[in-house]
Amino acid sequence: ASGAARSAAADRNLQLTKPPGALGRLEDLAAWYAGWRNDPRPRITAPQVLIFAGNHGVAAQGVSAFPVAVTAQMVENFRAGGAAINQLAELAGARLDVHALDLDRPTADFTQGAAMTEAEVCAAFATGWTAVDPKTDLLVTGEMGIGNTTSAAAIAGALLGGEGWAGRGTGVDDAGLARKAAAIAQGLAANPDRSGLGVLMALGGREVAAVAGAIAGARARRIPVILDGFICTAAALCLHVEDARALDHCVAGHLSAEGAHDRMLAALGMQPLLSLGLRLGEGSGAALAIQVLRGALACHSGMATFAEAGVSGA
Amino acid sequence: ASGAARSAAADRNLQLTKPPGALGRLEDLAAWYAGWRNDPRPRITAPQVLIFAGNHGVAAQGVSAFPVAVTAQMVENFRAGGAAINQLAELAGARLDVHALDLDRPTADFTQGAAMTEAEVCAAFATGWTAVDPKTDLLVTGEMGIGNTTSAAAIAGALLGGEGWAGRGTGVDDAGLARKAAAIAQGLAANPDRSGLGVLMALGGREVAAVAGAIAGARARRIPVILDGFICTAAALCLHVEDARALDHCVAGHLSAEGAHDRMLAALGMQPLLSLGLRLGEGSGAALAIQVLRGALACHSGMATFAEAGVSGA
Repeated sequence: ASGAARSAAADRNLQLTKPPGALGRLEDLAAWYAGWRNDPRPRITAPQVLIFAGNHGVAAQGVSAFPVAVTAQMVENFRAGGAAINQLAELAGARLDVHALDLDRPTADFTQGAAMTEAEVCAAFATGWTAVDPKTDLLVTGEMGIGNTTSAAAIAGALLGGEGWAGRGTGVDDAGLARKAAAIAQGLAANPDRSGLGVLMALGGREVAAVAGAIAGARARRIPVILDGFICTAAALCLHVEDARALDHCVAGHLSAEGAHDRMLAALGMQPLLSLGLRLGEGSGAALAIQVLRGALACHSGMATFAEAGVSGA
Repeated sequence: ASGAARSAAADRNLQLTKPPGALGRLEDLAAWYAGWRNDPRPRITAPQVLIFAGNHGVAAQGVSAFPVAVTAQMVENFRAGGAAINQLAELAGARLDVHALDLDRPTADFTQGAAMTEAEVCAAFATGWTAVDPKTDLLVTGEMGIGNTTSAAAIAGALLGGEGWAGRGTGVDDAGLARKAAAIAQGLAANPDRSGLGVLMALGGREVAAVAGAIAGARARRIPVILDGFICTAAALCLHVEDARALDHCVAGHLSAEGAHDRMLAALGMQPLLSLGLRLGEGSGAALAIQVLRGALACHSGMATFAEAGVSGA
């Protein structure tokens, strides 16, 4: 991030017609964004929402409330404009791109070994990296994949340790939750590599790897990212354990209602922008948070200074 | 609120292409809004932000970090488009109206008796009531008035009891905070009436009464309201103690960083939509929350059903 732009933004912030600090977190967000865009007075004009979809071999363990066919059906729904993310992307004036990754070729069941080969995880990561429009000024990553809260929970368990990462996902019952926890335990035992990229390959999925690739690709182009919920944060975690600065260009869009998302965010030292009990994925929570960040920049870049407005200071 | 529209909205919600409950609080917001608008599939197309400004006799007690002249200067800034609320209202596509209430005639200092006469509080209340555009479909109330966190804290103390309602406001120092707490204690002693409207008259201000009037006027026209922070919530509290259903058409837009706003919201049984550390007033937090509510309705009213999209259920 550009220290000069960030510090020029912080200087401007002190001159705006409001008591110092009165816009709270919006002030910090504006300075952070200014730094990444290397512009002391930026606005968000071209946000992009990327949805990656993938299928998971571990779904055969009965870990989801929905059949696997729903992944492809929801991709059609995204393309037809009928999903929640379509409405939220439109509201935010964001471009929406949907990438279905080999849906007819699910990953391998990770209870038996690695979900992906090195070639597969690299291809998915590259799909994510190249899906980022270099002209966008804010990226939201979303995902769809029946079984992918199981994958994300396994990633968290592998990288952060501890128990209780399995949650209800799309609404699995008690028996399904027990199967999910068992599958995660088996997956951790069957895949001992604990490096970030090793875990992404062994316990992730194509859409999870693509999210990680998009996050990394955005950083290379100085494009700030709003992370969505449980699955996107797990993807981000794989980057974070490789390099603690890998997520400096990211902000957590929301706190998901999915089980242990709060513990994942705490491990990343991130405070979510929203906390509204969403647990849908698709990038929905992050897309809703676009307007918070845009509001921060609208205030920062649009407000009059005390001198311009002839307002007395404290 | 219309039970029929609300229940039709709840029925529709169950058919939308997402797991039941996956949009969390957005689903409840959509049903609540549908009931008030008597429309099972509504959208927000004409939001209005109202700012009321007033001056306070109690400012003479040295309770604010800013001089009293700032109230009128900020009104000019609102009219010129330079304040935070201008940027946030524009982002939300909201009409913004500014009402300055007798700025050259501050209320009486409530440490010595009632801040307003019955005629004054009624006139201010009526200004608020009539300022609501009957054609708007969502109201945000905002305020500006040097000294008005002192007024709001006194209202909360009178109606809810307990100590510690005084906060830093626009950024008063320790000595100012002590003067503020003392002025509040004096005000409570000097004004023994504990009815909602009695407290509004004795400890409120013109802009506080206008906010209360706008909230009440919106209810009469079935217009949902997003409450802003500490001062607007105090105004709402005066209505709530008169009739526990008076705020059924309101949602708390955000949790302010101003001292005891959380206790005020708890007393009203309200959960804020946002919690971003704002403490500016002007309706800023509520205006930012317009997009959350709009997002809830965009999803509710715009999404495809399982049948429409050909997506399998759980």
